[in-house]
Amino acid sequence: MDKNLILIRHGQSEWNKLNLFTGWKDVDLSEQGKQEAVQAGQALLDYNIEPEICFTSYLKRAIKTLNIVLDTMNMDYLPVYKSWRLNEKHYGKLQGLNKKETAEKYGDEQVLKWRRVFDCQPPALDDTDERNPRNERRYKDIDVKDLPVTESLKDCIARCMPYFNDVILPEFKNHDTILIAAHGNSLRGIVKNLRNMSEQDIIQFNIPTGIPYLFTFDENLNLKEHKFLADEETVKKLMEQVANQGKK
Amino acid sequence: MDKNLILIRHGQSEWNKLNLFTGWKDVDLSEQGKQEAVQAGQALLDYNIEPEICFTSYLKRAIKTLNIVLDTMNMDYLPVYKSWRLNEKHYGKLQGLNKKETAEKYGDEQVLKWRRVFDCQPPALDDTDERNPRNERRYKDIDVKDLPVTESLKDCIARCMPYFNDVILPEFKNHDTILIAAHGNSLRGIVKNLRNMSEQDIIQFNIPTGIPYLFTFDENLNLKEHKFLADEETVKKLMEQVANQGKK
Repeated sequence: MDKNLILIRHGQSEWNKLNLFTGWKDVDLSEQGKQEAVQAGQALLDYNIEPEICFTSYLKRAIKTLNIVLDTMNMDYLPVYKSWRLNEKHYGKLQGLNKKETAEKYGDEQVLKWRRVFDCQPPALDDTDERNPRNERRYKDIDVKDLPVTESLKDCIARCMPYFNDVILPEFKNHDTILIAAHGNSLRGIVKNLRNMSEQDIIQFNIPTGIPYLFTFDENLNLKEHKFLADEETVKKLMEQVANQGKK
Repeated sequence: MDKNLILIRHGQSEWNKLNLFTGWKDVDLSEQGKQEAVQAGQALLDYNIEPEICFTSYLKRAIKTLNIVLDTMNMDYLPVYKSWRLNEKHYGKLQGLNKKETAEKYGDEQVLKWRRVFDCQPPALDDTDERNPRNERRYKDIDVKDLPVTESLKDCIARCMPYFNDVILPEFKNHDTILIAAHGNSLRGIVKNLRNMSEQDIIQFNIPTGIPYLFTFDENLNLKEHKFLADEETVKKLMEQVANQGKK
């Protein structure tokens, strides 16, 4: 029996709309973001894909995306597990800054580096900064040494993959179809790993929002196929939109 | 350290609004029901009660109530466990019938019996009835012999309590505050048990919607106090509304 993994990137958030660096800030979905989640659920129905177990991050834009997907499918009852390891990349001191203003101040190049160079970290948060995860109740049960104060894409992937490998993948022993609703960069880690992509290729790879990304494996978890559950033209257009976000 | 258990009964559903027997039918919250869930979350914020782990049923009116409560509190990230054992009482063949029409046909007395006599079961569903849980995908992993085709309040409580005793209560070893979002009758089972109420008393006891019901225990789980998180007048009015629902 084939195994299916579905990745869904959350739709537009209130801060995406304002073009702010979001990272671990727990902002809500915009109305458009909610609509994108409905569309993702509808796509799963259209393609007849039935998840059996779901994973998401500690951030409400991913959690609510998942809730809306499940509700659209009338599968609200499915088990859902949440982990901080699936959170978006931590943007350190950039969190809350406007992307355009940051680009004007530091230049397109520096911003693109912070957003997209594999091992480039934005400036780190101070210990006392209220944006520091160690000062947030929701992370109180997590070892402080594991909590980031800034992250490169490399750091984000390194933090995400133990959960994917040790908790999510083993669920294929009990289930045929797993759904993950998460963020652009945590999902990049999973995609890079599954497709054996280079650092350069994963940086260039933009996962569109609202379109489920389906990976199919044989029973030994060898990758057989991966595809977006939408027509090619739609996918191309959406990927370009995301790629252009950080530019002036 | 004291331990807190919060019970929340889901708000108005689309079928409550139409005054139909709902039971295990997976109907959505009405707009008013969503508003009641916001109000319940607001009450928890007002009383400064912070849940750490949550439980709900397999039915979307309870799940969505919980999601809205958590979202109102900005605590979407909390762990949530879902179980069919917390589902509403199964109304057998009455599911989908109008309460008033049923009352006119069978008389107030019979309907009140079906709704409220401790061990009185409505007519059972046939094996092939699509309303029979064994024909529903969501219950496919549950032993058919455990799945009801109709339930008295006694049956509903007997099905609910093993989960409460064996899964929920032991979580007080790891947590101080537990939240359960469920249904009028599954919550009756828990209340009866915690308060040592008689069969007659629990039948008369109507849990209002949208008002968190807080039980406080000492560290040995001896009950110290129980109260609704609202003023007395509001609670009384809401309880009376529910009590009057089944009448012509």
